[in-house]
Amino acid sequence: MTVRVAVAGASGYAGGELLRLLLGHPGVEIGALTGNSSAGARLGTLQPQLVPLAGREVAPTTAGELAGHDVVFLALPHGRSAALARELGPDVLVVDCGADFRLRDAADWEKFYGSPHPGTWPYGLPELPGARAALATATRIAVPGCYPTAVALTLFPAYAARLAGPEAVVVAASGTSGAGRTPRPHLLGSEVMGSMTPYGVGGGHRHTPEIAQSLSQVAGERVTVSFTPTLAPMSRGILATCSAPALPGVSAEDVRTAYAKAYADEPFVRLLPEGQWPATAAVRGANTALVQVALDETAGRIVAVGAIDNLTKGTAGGAVQSMNLALGLPESTGLPTIGVAP
Amino acid sequence: MTVRVAVAGASGYAGGELLRLLLGHPGVEIGALTGNSSAGARLGTLQPQLVPLAGREVAPTTAGELAGHDVVFLALPHGRSAALARELGPDVLVVDCGADFRLRDAADWEKFYGSPHPGTWPYGLPELPGARAALATATRIAVPGCYPTAVALTLFPAYAARLAGPEAVVVAASGTSGAGRTPRPHLLGSEVMGSMTPYGVGGGHRHTPEIAQSLSQVAGERVTVSFTPTLAPMSRGILATCSAPALPGVSAEDVRTAYAKAYADEPFVRLLPEGQWPATAAVRGANTALVQVALDETAGRIVAVGAIDNLTKGTAGGAVQSMNLALGLPESTGLPTIGVAP
Amino acid sequence: MTVRVAVAGASGYAGGELLRLLLGHPGVEIGALTGNSSAGARLGTLQPQLVPLAGREVAPTTAGELAGHDVVFLALPHGRSAALARELGPDVLVVDCGADFRLRDAADWEKFYGSPHPGTWPYGLPELPGARAALATATRIAVPGCYPTAVALTLFPAYAARLAGPEAVVVAASGTSGAGRTPRPHLLGSEVMGSMTPYGVGGGHRHTPEIAQSLSQVAGERVTVSFTPTLAPMSRGILATCSAPALPGVSAEDVRTAYAKAYADEPFVRLLPEGQWPATAAVRGANTALVQVALDETAGRIVAVGAIDNLTKGTAGGAVQSMNLALGLPESTGLPTIGVAP
Amino acid sequence: MTVRVAVAGASGYAGGELLRLLLGHPGVEIGALTGNSSAGARLGTLQPQLVPLAGREVAPTTAGELAGHDVVFLALPHGRSAALARELGPDVLVVDCGADFRLRDAADWEKFYGSPHPGTWPYGLPELPGARAALATATRIAVPGCYPTAVALTLFPAYAARLAGPEAVVVAASGTSGAGRTPRPHLLGSEVMGSMTPYGVGGGHRHTPEIAQSLSQVAGERVTVSFTPTLAPMSRGILATCSAPALPGVSAEDVRTAYAKAYADEPFVRLLPEGQWPATAAVRGANTALVQVALDETAGRIVAVGAIDNLTKGTAGGAVQSMNLALGLPESTGLPTIGVAP
Repeated sequence: MTVRVAVAGASGYAGGELLRLLLGHPGVEIGALTGNSSAGARLGTLQPQLVPLAGREVAPTTAGELAGHDVVFLALPHGRSAALARELGPDVLVVDCGADFRLRDAADWEKFYGSPHPGTWPYGLPELPGARAALATATRIAVPGCYPTAVALTLFPAYAARLAGPEAVVVAASGTSGAGRTPRPHLLGSEVMGSMTPYGVGGGHRHTPEIAQSLSQVAGERVTVSFTPTLAPMSRGILATCSAPALPGVSAEDVRTAYAKAYADEPFVRLLPEGQWPATAAVRGANTALVQVALDETAGRIVAVGAIDNLTKGTAGGAVQSMNLALGLPESTGLPTIGVAP
Repeated sequence: MTVRVAVAGASGYAGGELLRLLLGHPGVEIGALTGNSSAGARLGTLQPQLVPLAGREVAPTTAGELAGHDVVFLALPHGRSAALARELGPDVLVVDCGADFRLRDAADWEKFYGSPHPGTWPYGLPELPGARAALATATRIAVPGCYPTAVALTLFPAYAARLAGPEAVVVAASGTSGAGRTPRPHLLGSEVMGSMTPYGVGGGHRHTPEIAQSLSQVAGERVTVSFTPTLAPMSRGILATCSAPALPGVSAEDVRTAYAKAYADEPFVRLLPEGQWPATAAVRGANTALVQVALDETAGRIVAVGAIDNLTKGTAGGAVQSMNLALGLPESTGLPTIGVAP
Repeated sequence: MTVRVAVAGASGYAGGELLRLLLGHPGVEIGALTGNSSAGARLGTLQPQLVPLAGREVAPTTAGELAGHDVVFLALPHGRSAALARELGPDVLVVDCGADFRLRDAADWEKFYGSPHPGTWPYGLPELPGARAALATATRIAVPGCYPTAVALTLFPAYAARLAGPEAVVVAASGTSGAGRTPRPHLLGSEVMGSMTPYGVGGGHRHTPEIAQSLSQVAGERVTVSFTPTLAPMSRGILATCSAPALPGVSAEDVRTAYAKAYADEPFVRLLPEGQWPATAAVRGANTALVQVALDETAGRIVAVGAIDNLTKGTAGGAVQSMNLALGLPESTGLPTIGVAP
Repeated sequence: MTVRVAVAGASGYAGGELLRLLLGHPGVEIGALTGNSSAGARLGTLQPQLVPLAGREVAPTTAGELAGHDVVFLALPHGRSAALARELGPDVLVVDCGADFRLRDAADWEKFYGSPHPGTWPYGLPELPGARAALATATRIAVPGCYPTAVALTLFPAYAARLAGPEAVVVAASGTSGAGRTPRPHLLGSEVMGSMTPYGVGGGHRHTPEIAQSLSQVAGERVTVSFTPTLAPMSRGILATCSAPALPGVSAEDVRTAYAKAYADEPFVRLLPEGQWPATAAVRGANTALVQVALDETAGRIVAVGAIDNLTKGTAGGAVQSMNLALGLPESTGLPTIGVAP
């Protein structure tokens, strides 16, 4: 069986990464590629790395162009998915890489996005407890944000095993591709090379409630997150440094055991051997998360660090992984686990 | 008055930065430049940026070579300062960029450095309460570590004003020059470019007790620090993302007022206007710290972020600033405040 | 049919890239992995990106460990291949990523390598005229250097079509992985980030005679090459900017036609549409060469620019491509053509 | 004597660098700072590195705002200088960092800029033969382009000493700040990090005729230049790799002697000791050019490589150096020669 897929937003970074993965996926055939300002251009001028698709023309992003496919990936600015999804009909699998359908709490949505809550779709993070079952029957999937993917994978075992208190602190460094391809002054190479800078500090980043949602679900209680994203001088990669108070009596062995157990059967998450810490370069282009954890006995905190590629496991790889589950394919189909390093 | 200075460790990064600053200092004359494996080489082959010193030969690091100067800067691996300082005599101003004399607590020293405590010298961070008076009469100065400088400057106002609880969490990104110039595999350009990675996680980094010492002194109580350093793909710069629980009733205005007051008369620390966050590029080569702070009301934490150049304010600039105080010169003499950006 | 392969030098950059590609090759099974100083270590600590091989132990590089495989890849310092190859016997396919057997001219070898000429093996650049036939029957293959691969692919069509005079000028920028993984001061991240520097200027780089050999062979006359390699602040990639005098009467159309014809059936070389120039990022991790050419009528020169990944098409990918030919497999088996960009 | 200076284009990279240097210049006082889209903003939000000017407001770029200063620096898009200069009157020293008045040949101007030739001003490259005399009496100065500065300084001694034939080949790598601060997709950090790419290949770059003009003037005959600029993953710096045919009988010693003589009394150009090649990092933020040269006897070419900071010696530093000459100040006043490395 070959399914026919369309990608809306093919000229952006998420769209390009989706196409890179889909070109290597044995069960799909690539149909429509759409864009907005890029409509009419050859894909080769926008995504020169996608050599096999270089001659393909970008179509405008309309429901008409996207119709007639088994799967439609949406890699669009938030706010555009609901209308398109409605027009595509219920038997098309719609995988949305945008934010629109990630949050369950309408108040959170309204506070952070400033518009009425569009609803909630099954959350495309298969590693979270219960997620696979929901994805297996889904026809609509909300792919998590890149930071929420990194943080949830890095910290959930501590909460799942009831080892950590509900006040998490996360500082995450992201490569610049996470900010998208629209040219803005602070994203110029001249500005980002040789520089680190935070943004959305103090609780203002839109991924904050999404992170809290996942951790709270796993913890069975409300977890608050002090989340500080920083922009790092690299194109790809997220390094999420996460900590939470260790509950009284928790030992280093408890922590390690919980993490080993949580990831034991996960095809895309690897707990590193003791003493080895993750580097983002090791997961460049891979759907892999590398995680390590330690107990800081002096400070009384569990400290876990995870590395993912924001475009692969953090966006396009997670989207394809979820698609595989929804289509009943083996979950790992077409997904690289090996990074392009150095 | 011109003082004659020597620099031990002239071929390393700290030594090179000391020389860059001292060449622009109107009150000093540069005497001996010493090194170990580099002894006998021309400085121009090791530090090609120091054009005016290109023809100078590196002498071996011995007390004999360092004798006869008014000021001796030591930029050496830890463990070597005590013996040299003893031989230099009490009227030479010795400014040690190494760790040997920074910690007051002998147990901390022994735990983190594994050797007998060599003692404690006046701490070269003038911005800390009480530091200027001690430095004014000092003949021995322990220059702080680069991370401790960044964190203390970023977080002390919250503790000085009694706004924060004693459990600080710090995640700091550093440029690779902080790891020195000795070639090691993980410091290769191929490894660090495009990658972020943590190290010394869980309380193991040697700067941890030094950070705790400064914050505890300001707070008047024991402050614990969960400290995670990360290596960032840039040559210079530290971005320190620091947070601590806000004490009950603390408002955003309280926080801002405390920070504004703490830095009001500081020549080298600047609280940015509200909404602007520091980038390390803006302080490249400058003795400036840029700081911003916010109150995260949902998470109940004060979040402060500071940027310094690890080699300038974090090492050589801090050393020269302290020397100025000890010599009775205006504190800012010879110290740039303007960064080389972009 | 599955062939069993060994990789000598598994802890270096070329070895790591070989393993990345071989893990995705449907016709091979990975046998011995060997190293020198890394013998005894787990591969996962040295090559964390190779997740499926993380638990494998590195064996010492001896003929004994390498025996019993169908194919042996050598990714070793030059001078070590001859003795190993001799011990492996004539029915093992030996693919040498080192320099030992690339040069035909003994005098060139002795001048540039300072040792007796070890001989010449079939040259693993299938795109050169006549190369595929020689590789089809080879049991020994000399993989070209990374620069010679980039330059030959970029410039040979101009010589094959007799459009260019025999005085080529090449300036090439390489990522730092081309210099290998042995730590040396000038390869530190602190040195290479934010900096460009040349080396081996004036004809001294060892790849110079190899470049001249390939171009001369295609041209049917002796071509001299002024070759200047430069080290660029990136991990991977070569951008080769090549020019040669246009012979009298040559038109822009002649040039374009020659290039289009030369690459028409090449699976791994792509002539970009007019006006689009190659970027190394577009071929990151891919076995693809992107090339563009122009005629500068004022200066009277043909200017061609090619981009490859030095570790993929420039080393490991070229090695696997040649192996495929020698084994009678489809030439493209297991080789990605899509880059990991951005 | 203190002169009052204005900077038009204060929010761009050239403007920011001018202000950095002027803040350290003992003979100037900084007056109006103007911009276009940035008018009304505080300089501290646009140029956070310029701490002493953080509170200054950007005025609109009009002749009225620029009037009343002794010196006006123009750092504007080309085409805007002529009208402004006319309005400023003849006793104001106008130093134009744009291209408008660099070319002497009207046909060259029209071909490369597509508009009527605005005229020619004294050329602000003091190191060229005859330039200092012209600058000493100038009230209008055309600051050279960054590439032309790098190439002319690197190659002119070979032509001044009549050692080289008139067909120069130049491949230069530039940091991204050379492309300015206007956000464009190909200048995004995500695109430029980890990538090298050429542009303006085949003679199309506007700096080509300017380079040819300088070299032809020195050579006393028409020199053609095959010029290929490339964009490198760094913020600052130009590495110019230049070569030209060695005339018959020219020896390596001839070449070295010519270079040593040409730079003997130059305060800002340094011929490196034999065997040492320039790196752009060594001149970061400095008004220094580092140059090295070799004779490739096999290829019959003189190969010279020069490194400058495109924003300092390549733009703002050259502008201040020329201003010093025009004002009768010591040429080096206020200009750093030491780079900020690593």
